Amino acid sequence: MSSSQPPEFLKIQYQIMQSTFHEILLRHGFAGEKAQACASIFADNSLDGVYTHGVNRFPRFVKYVLDGHVRPDAEPVRESAIGCIEQWDGRLGPGPLNALHCTDRAMEIANAQGMGCVAIANTNHWMRGGTYGWRAARKGFVFIGWTNTTANMPTWGAVNSKLGNNPLVIAVPNQDDAIVLDMAMSQFSYGMLEFYQLKNQQLPVQGGFTTEGTLTTDPGSILKSQRILPVGYWKGAGLSLLLDILATILSGGLSVAGITKQPAEISASQVFIAIAVSKLKNFATISSAITQILDDYHDSIPEKGSKILYPGEKVMSVRKENTTNGIPVLKSVWEEIKSL
Amino acid sequence: MSSSQPPEFLKIQYQIMQSTFHEILLRHGFAGEKAQACASIFADNSLDGVYTHGVNRFPRFVKYVLDGHVRPDAEPVRESAIGCIEQWDGRLGPGPLNALHCTDRAMEIANAQGMGCVAIANTNHWMRGGTYGWRAARKGFVFIGWTNTTANMPTWGAVNSKLGNNPLVIAVPNQDDAIVLDMAMSQFSYGMLEFYQLKNQQLPVQGGFTTEGTLTTDPGSILKSQRILPVGYWKGAGLSLLLDILATILSGGLSVAGITKQPAEISASQVFIAIAVSKLKNFATISSAITQILDDYHDSIPEKGSKILYPGEKVMSVRKENTTNGIPVLKSVWEEIKSL
Repeated sequence: MSSSQPPEFLKIQYQIMQSTFHEILLRHGFAGEKAQACASIFADNSLDGVYTHGVNRFPRFVKYVLDGHVRPDAEPVRESAIGCIEQWDGRLGPGPLNALHCTDRAMEIANAQGMGCVAIANTNHWMRGGTYGWRAARKGFVFIGWTNTTANMPTWGAVNSKLGNNPLVIAVPNQDDAIVLDMAMSQFSYGMLEFYQLKNQQLPVQGGFTTEGTLTTDPGSILKSQRILPVGYWKGAGLSLLLDILATILSGGLSVAGITKQPAEISASQVFIAIAVSKLKNFATISSAITQILDDYHDSIPEKGSKILYPGEKVMSVRKENTTNGIPVLKSVWEEIKSL
Repeated sequence: MSSSQPPEFLKIQYQIMQSTFHEILLRHGFAGEKAQACASIFADNSLDGVYTHGVNRFPRFVKYVLDGHVRPDAEPVRESAIGCIEQWDGRLGPGPLNALHCTDRAMEIANAQGMGCVAIANTNHWMRGGTYGWRAARKGFVFIGWTNTTANMPTWGAVNSKLGNNPLVIAVPNQDDAIVLDMAMSQFSYGMLEFYQLKNQQLPVQGGFTTEGTLTTDPGSILKSQRILPVGYWKGAGLSLLLDILATILSGGLSVAGITKQPAEISASQVFIAIAVSKLKNFATISSAITQILDDYHDSIPEKGSKILYPGEKVMSVRKENTTNGIPVLKSVWEEIKSL
């Protein structure tokens, strides 16, 4: 797409998008309820403005099904239960459905035991991690979850990619909605670098190295070097490594190194922790404690006049806008989807 | 201290340092076992090279005791138990002793229920978070813990400090020792900025803003603006906020904003999670899974020839060196300690 011809966008209403996904999934081996749930996740992610793991990702998801990487009829199986920890085998089923299942199961365990931890091996890309944080937090649970990925990031001081960007999600109920942090361990995703490059813009902060090993804000140089930056340099690199180790040993599944040897990005390991805050002795005061923290946070003095937002706060306004006006989708992407 | 007169260092053997701390604590209201345990934590942190939260911090710790901020005889009290979660009141006792107690209690719960979570309110600075990670991991547990702090860092886009640096610790057993990530949410601590300024050196990466709002590697400019940088800019800022919210609501204690209103940095909220990996179905394969991950990580190609280390790996070599050669201590610091 050349910069002289700006891409054409459509606005698709949520229901249209969801039912379009639903019909396509029904034609690709997803049974009724599964097609429904999976279509809703892709549509919800798009409604929330996370297009990279919603509508824009849908064609690749269907391709993974067609290629046999994602098995639409596979059911996760519980391999073991030890107190409040359960280990499941995802059997290469659809990542979003396996993740939904693990989130719900972690909440069930938490309801019985205060906290629940579900680790799953042999699952697939969960798309947007925030999905599971919003879900659990809206039901009144604290949620902590993460996944490993294929190797896509060098550790600090290295030139080759040995780390995954291993997204981490932390979510907390807040009044009628939630506070949701959904952060990958890379400062910018490759998708984001391409987005800045398309717009012919520099990154707002350094995002990686040039091939000569200099830190840079130029997306094209980083796309060339393939040396994206971990958040906080050595710190995010360490966090990425530890999240991989935890996901691997808690689930008994593949590590980043193991996933990287697969024919595609499949067979990830994931962890889902839920805490039933409604059972805590101080439950009655939690809502006001959170409000006080957010009020104090909002008292931050912005450098440039724009309001300081907490994690998830912008998502809520995008959701509102997209609900009213429809979800913006590249015309080319929507046409591709309709042809699936 | 002027740069023309380099500071004089002594080398103190571990046993001398530990017994010196022990005697001082006995004279300051710490009962026998507590004096012993607390002295060992400060000496161990120094042995591991974390001088900022070991020997260099000891005089301030004693001052907090003298000022009545830290109550040497206070015992933590369990306020509630809900399944695998317990809430404790630290009663403003010594932070390291409360944290030790919570770590051990989380392991006890994990032994019974797979995973244990202990949240503590009204505790004090735990010094080095890694202490509790090393302890739990060496006993065979996965450990995840964090603390909130006084406000000392602006969120991304803000000029005033509303966030704590809220250190997060993740530790995993590894053969005879452990892998321990111990990371504050600021890219550099104020102590580290002062260290670089003393050496008249620039930071290796951008660490904060000038008073004019420009990102800089100059430690003096950041010390002046008091605008240190969260790890990964907006990402670490979000993580810091969420860790504060979780510590606050899980413990029922003070938030960063609440601590900041205290007369000193007291009454923190902390969370200690232990997972008994020895009970997992795949336990027999965990050790080799970790070795494979670390071997792959060590296959990183270093940019400048120096070996790529995993979190905690350098600590082990410093520990060995300090055990053999004694712990380096500024002569002025050691003289101050001997006068306590």
